Amino acid sequence: MEILQKAGEFLRTIKEKKPLIHHITNYVTMNDCANIVLAMGGSPIMANDPAEAAEVTAVSSALVLNMGTPNPANVEAMLAAGRIANEKRIPVVFDPVGAGMTAFRKTIAGSILNHVKPAVIRGNMGEIMYLAGLGGCSHGVDSDTLADNVIETAKSLAQSLNCIVALTGKKDVVTDGKTVFLISNGAETLSRVTGTGCMTSSLVGTFCGAAGNYLHAAAAGVMTMGIAGQLAYDGLAAGEGIGTFKVKLFDRIYNFSAETFAEYGNIQIY
Amino acid sequence: MEILQKAGEFLRTIKEKKPLIHHITNYVTMNDCANIVLAMGGSPIMANDPAEAAEVTAVSSALVLNMGTPNPANVEAMLAAGRIANEKRIPVVFDPVGAGMTAFRKTIAGSILNHVKPAVIRGNMGEIMYLAGLGGCSHGVDSDTLADNVIETAKSLAQSLNCIVALTGKKDVVTDGKTVFLISNGAETLSRVTGTGCMTSSLVGTFCGAAGNYLHAAAAGVMTMGIAGQLAYDGLAAGEGIGTFKVKLFDRIYNFSAETFAEYGNIQIY
Amino acid sequence: MEILQKAGEFLRTIKEKKPLIHHITNYVTMNDCANIVLAMGGSPIMANDPAEAAEVTAVSSALVLNMGTPNPANVEAMLAAGRIANEKRIPVVFDPVGAGMTAFRKTIAGSILNHVKPAVIRGNMGEIMYLAGLGGCSHGVDSDTLADNVIETAKSLAQSLNCIVALTGKKDVVTDGKTVFLISNGAETLSRVTGTGCMTSSLVGTFCGAAGNYLHAAAAGVMTMGIAGQLAYDGLAAGEGIGTFKVKLFDRIYNFSAETFAEYGNIQIY
Repeated sequence: MEILQKAGEFLRTIKEKKPLIHHITNYVTMNDCANIVLAMGGSPIMANDPAEAAEVTAVSSALVLNMGTPNPANVEAMLAAGRIANEKRIPVVFDPVGAGMTAFRKTIAGSILNHVKPAVIRGNMGEIMYLAGLGGCSHGVDSDTLADNVIETAKSLAQSLNCIVALTGKKDVVTDGKTVFLISNGAETLSRVTGTGCMTSSLVGTFCGAAGNYLHAAAAGVMTMGIAGQLAYDGLAAGEGIGTFKVKLFDRIYNFSAETFAEYGNIQIY
Repeated sequence: MEILQKAGEFLRTIKEKKPLIHHITNYVTMNDCANIVLAMGGSPIMANDPAEAAEVTAVSSALVLNMGTPNPANVEAMLAAGRIANEKRIPVVFDPVGAGMTAFRKTIAGSILNHVKPAVIRGNMGEIMYLAGLGGCSHGVDSDTLADNVIETAKSLAQSLNCIVALTGKKDVVTDGKTVFLISNGAETLSRVTGTGCMTSSLVGTFCGAAGNYLHAAAAGVMTMGIAGQLAYDGLAAGEGIGTFKVKLFDRIYNFSAETFAEYGNIQIY
Repeated sequence: MEILQKAGEFLRTIKEKKPLIHHITNYVTMNDCANIVLAMGGSPIMANDPAEAAEVTAVSSALVLNMGTPNPANVEAMLAAGRIANEKRIPVVFDPVGAGMTAFRKTIAGSILNHVKPAVIRGNMGEIMYLAGLGGCSHGVDSDTLADNVIETAKSLAQSLNCIVALTGKKDVVTDGKTVFLISNGAETLSRVTGTGCMTSSLVGTFCGAAGNYLHAAAAGVMTMGIAGQLAYDGLAAGEGIGTFKVKLFDRIYNFSAETFAEYGNIQIY
């Protein structure tokens, strides 16, 4: 399928250009996010203070905003960085972690969407439903059942915000509001490691930093995590668990190639 | 022994109910704490800003307060979250990291104990001695020799605060001020990995989120880390060290079952 | 060579004395920095709030200042801690992460060098060139080509600040402005894992906490990371990548001995 070939080309571009991916992200998973970008071939930077965030964004190839551990300072940094990214047409990936869970996160999510135009929103079902105004709420941050109306919700959010929506769960949905990609890679174990959602957003950011088509970039980033998770899971021996799984996940991302997409990518147009 | 069977039952409850465990914790080990809760079957959330901490606690099954990297904002969040937890009878696990080490930490530890009633305090000998008013001081955060008067100190602190005290070290002491459990699992290597104390507190929090008897829950959580550490150590090959040990520790927690307690639990009533 | 023997002696001292190494460091890599100090045999503490930083430094054997994720609070803590360290002749290792990249970091780097006298500065080429006033700028934080004039730059910075400069990259340069050590250990994969620079600074801090000669301590710390990286890389099987590499890196540091320096150290006087 064409998207598999394109994903492979994007990957070559990442390895050649080493795009600088600026993150303003949460404290729980920022080490993993930095390492996943490095594993893929990009160059991460995690400057999260308002005093320098915009200046760092201005020299970056993509910006990832993740509200997993929000506080007044990092939210101010996200808004300043998002504005400069929009001005300079640097793609913004927004990960609305736990949006809808507290009044504070509702305000932040609203504020970001009012002031920053994301290229891609990457979230789980509860988060995407909340942003779509359907009152979804992420109880915790790992809800991931795929309900019937989910695809329509993702499409509708993409249309209303004129951006790409990447909804990840047991199956992943990536859409620009018209075309819908359904991705069936992945492993249940991914939901048992903290930060696999955040890392998926970082991968999407890395692909956006190297590709002009954000629909395809988002699909490639989401698929990368799914395939790597699947291969990491298949490589586990008896008695191994999330410790070894996480190590193998990074190994798989590090060794990803265009051929990996071609061989394992399970993606279709809905 | 009865406690081993109960620990196994608690574990089944965790896997069924996936209790949400709210942490306000330090920046050094929060990723490990999130992963250990996931490995055990719970669901972690690490919201540490005063703007939302209490709201997150209100929907959680347990609250873990860890003062490893204290600052004015996270201390304010701990107090707000602790108060709502007490109101709603949500168990609070307090990890007084480095209590007694600086004037700032002395003030914080005092303030938390003045405003929040913990279900369990989990600390090393220096921390527990400091809280018990015996002038103990944790030089660094890893002191762990078991002195003769330690059991009496733990009992006395438990009685005066009417809570469970879990003092971990070469041997672990868990007491409600009357019953004393002595746990002899563990491996010396646990003290060579940062955050194994914090992770033990997270495990205790996870068990408290699934069990009404906090004495038994604390014993189960402490024993889980000891057994997993012992099995991880026994699985090391020549030339391996703390890198592999930490991976195997997570694997062991992930594969824990009621049978693991029955087979390896080394616990007695003192 | 004499330095290899000395490095081995320092290592024995670390394992005997377990020096307390205070870090005020970035949020991305602080867990790795704590674990690398523990792996080596030291005792890490990461207190980064101005309310207690100086008090913690006062009882420590070395202080590591790392400006990877600077904010007003941690910068204030660095200045307060650095001042007390200088007063008490506790060695300070300064890691000027991304110095020159933003106006904020330029101000911070200048402020630290105006108020604190480091025993060792450990940085990459862009960072060292910026501090030397040559307008070098670290685009991202991982630039590492060794240009012809680099050794002279390192020497000149060491002379003007009267401290040790450790410039790490494909080859590493460690100098007091007179003697220059060139270290040829290392593996390209080290640049694909976040925090290996920060961890090198932590190792240098650990050696400085156990040795009076900071030129030799810095050379030993830098060499430790290079040798461990090389051995970790050599131990990789097909299909393994940065996940396994990082695990093996910690294993190698944990199992380091005086003999490891003697057998693998590739260091010469320039």
